Amino acid sequence: MAGRKVTLKDLAIKAGLSVNTISRALKDKEDISPATRKTIQDLAKEMGYVGNALAGSLRSGLTKTIAVIVSDVANPHFGIMVKDIEKTARKHNYTIFVINTEDDYEMEERAIYTAIGKNVDAIIICPSQRSTDNIRFLQKNGVPFVLIGRRFREEPDFDYVICDDEKGGYLATKHLIESGRERVLFLNGPGRISSAQERLEGYKRAHAEAGLPIRDELIVEVGASAGDTRQVVKRLIERDATFTGIFAFNDVIAWEAAYVLQKHGYRVPDDFGVIGFDNIQSRLFIPFQLSSVSPSKGKMSKRAVDIVLHKINHPESKTRFREVIDTALVLRESTK
Amino acid sequence: MAGRKVTLKDLAIKAGLSVNTISRALKDKEDISPATRKTIQDLAKEMGYVGNALAGSLRSGLTKTIAVIVSDVANPHFGIMVKDIEKTARKHNYTIFVINTEDDYEMEERAIYTAIGKNVDAIIICPSQRSTDNIRFLQKNGVPFVLIGRRFREEPDFDYVICDDEKGGYLATKHLIESGRERVLFLNGPGRISSAQERLEGYKRAHAEAGLPIRDELIVEVGASAGDTRQVVKRLIERDATFTGIFAFNDVIAWEAAYVLQKHGYRVPDDFGVIGFDNIQSRLFIPFQLSSVSPSKGKMSKRAVDIVLHKINHPESKTRFREVIDTALVLRESTK
Repeated sequence: MAGRKVTLKDLAIKAGLSVNTISRALKDKEDISPATRKTIQDLAKEMGYVGNALAGSLRSGLTKTIAVIVSDVANPHFGIMVKDIEKTARKHNYTIFVINTEDDYEMEERAIYTAIGKNVDAIIICPSQRSTDNIRFLQKNGVPFVLIGRRFREEPDFDYVICDDEKGGYLATKHLIESGRERVLFLNGPGRISSAQERLEGYKRAHAEAGLPIRDELIVEVGASAGDTRQVVKRLIERDATFTGIFAFNDVIAWEAAYVLQKHGYRVPDDFGVIGFDNIQSRLFIPFQLSSVSPSKGKMSKRAVDIVLHKINHPESKTRFREVIDTALVLRESTK
Repeated sequence: MAGRKVTLKDLAIKAGLSVNTISRALKDKEDISPATRKTIQDLAKEMGYVGNALAGSLRSGLTKTIAVIVSDVANPHFGIMVKDIEKTARKHNYTIFVINTEDDYEMEERAIYTAIGKNVDAIIICPSQRSTDNIRFLQKNGVPFVLIGRRFREEPDFDYVICDDEKGGYLATKHLIESGRERVLFLNGPGRISSAQERLEGYKRAHAEAGLPIRDELIVEVGASAGDTRQVVKRLIERDATFTGIFAFNDVIAWEAAYVLQKHGYRVPDDFGVIGFDNIQSRLFIPFQLSSVSPSKGKMSKRAVDIVLHKINHPESKTRFREVIDTALVLRESTK
């Protein structure tokens, strides 16, 4: 069928039956004989017909789809989480689709409109945190949703599942300090993001515990996406680096920092110890053994699905979900 | 609005107007006064209302969405392509969403049903090639689509945009041979995939040109996803490796091979020269400088969008799209 999609009417003409009969047969209505239902369902498949929603949804009101809205689909961390989310969703017969926002306010707004407009049953979203408006809109709309990886501390009624970012920042910084790298450069993500704020709190706690001062010049915000870190690190090491440890907001930034160091003839871990965040190495085997904070990606993803399924299945439930999953430091060659 | 989504009826009650008036105002119909339209549209936003399709679609019949169906969302290559596809689509006011298939037949079938059921205007798909049925179904359905990265050579009426896989395989193998690594292990993807077949043809051409025999034991199929290569490479190098060059079907496999070599105390490039495919390094800065075949990800992505837009806008067009984008070898440290 070139040029236009197959319709109910096409099926009706082909079968020599009314559109109403075709429609009822596809919905498996019992007033159509089992044999006719089977014939029409086979014909639909043969002719490439797909209804506006999956068959099941016509009965339950559910479309059995969940939208996952992420900030950077090219960061393997999100790719891995999407796979984990999908794996859990599939067990419950849900299909997921992904929309990317680049952490941009307008793309996020559009992603939310698209997801709702496509009648998803729920949304799992890593919010850009450029404002609360988009999430507030989600809430007013009434579609079940949960935040993943980031939270609005001033808006406790937005449900979330995050990892213990403060602890992760603390463990990474503490390790660098205790292994003799007392000056730790923190390549942090944008300050509007809760995970960046909380990892910084951990960084500060480790300093306080060790009786070390916080040096503002060692706390630098970089973009969270690939390509943003190069210039920053290049400038810092060319300008007489006083630090020997680097803690990065995520693995993509840590890789990029190590890449620049290598380009300048420095060696990791001999000259600089580097720790990332996300522990991508557990799932993607890079020939650079990066130490990293594990955010329990698998657990976070599974919980996010469980939470939205609970909301879908118990629309009147008042349960609030504010979940913080434990983090752990995984040491590898980059801090030996 | 807890527990259920905001409806047209909710807006009608709030505004004290009929559902019909509300609906026509949201569609920007001119029989409703501009002031009333504005009031109702503002109210919709305030109350979190989203129609079943984006506003524009009600007039044009288009939903301004394209589904991108990929085989492995955790492979940064696909993440980068998705970003590139999105960038072009956004210029034309299209939103994209992504569905992952894991190269699994049933997940692919379901992805196609979901995309069509969500009324997308077109589909860009990297097919699993486990059979032609799913793509045949797409074709019967009539939704505009294009294959990306893989083609069915026996089905010339499925439009595609791919890169020159044969040339890529040839260039990589030729370089390894000419730099003195005459025995080249080819860690290839699954043989059902056209890109795996064509890269193998290039591998063979380079051998023929150099007057070297093809050694079947040096051509090994591994899964295309992370984690599948480790055991294979481990077994090969433990069993007295006769090769000193490695050409991998994609960068994820190449990284993983280099990772195993490092774990066993070998060095890249001193002991083994390694070349991947996809050139992820151009967009993600890994502190391991992998030589790789560039498939012109950006160009492929842009063309895929251009092709489906042409099909959307010219439903009666008979133009066939069989596009092969040039590949190039990018040399870095892993083959020095």
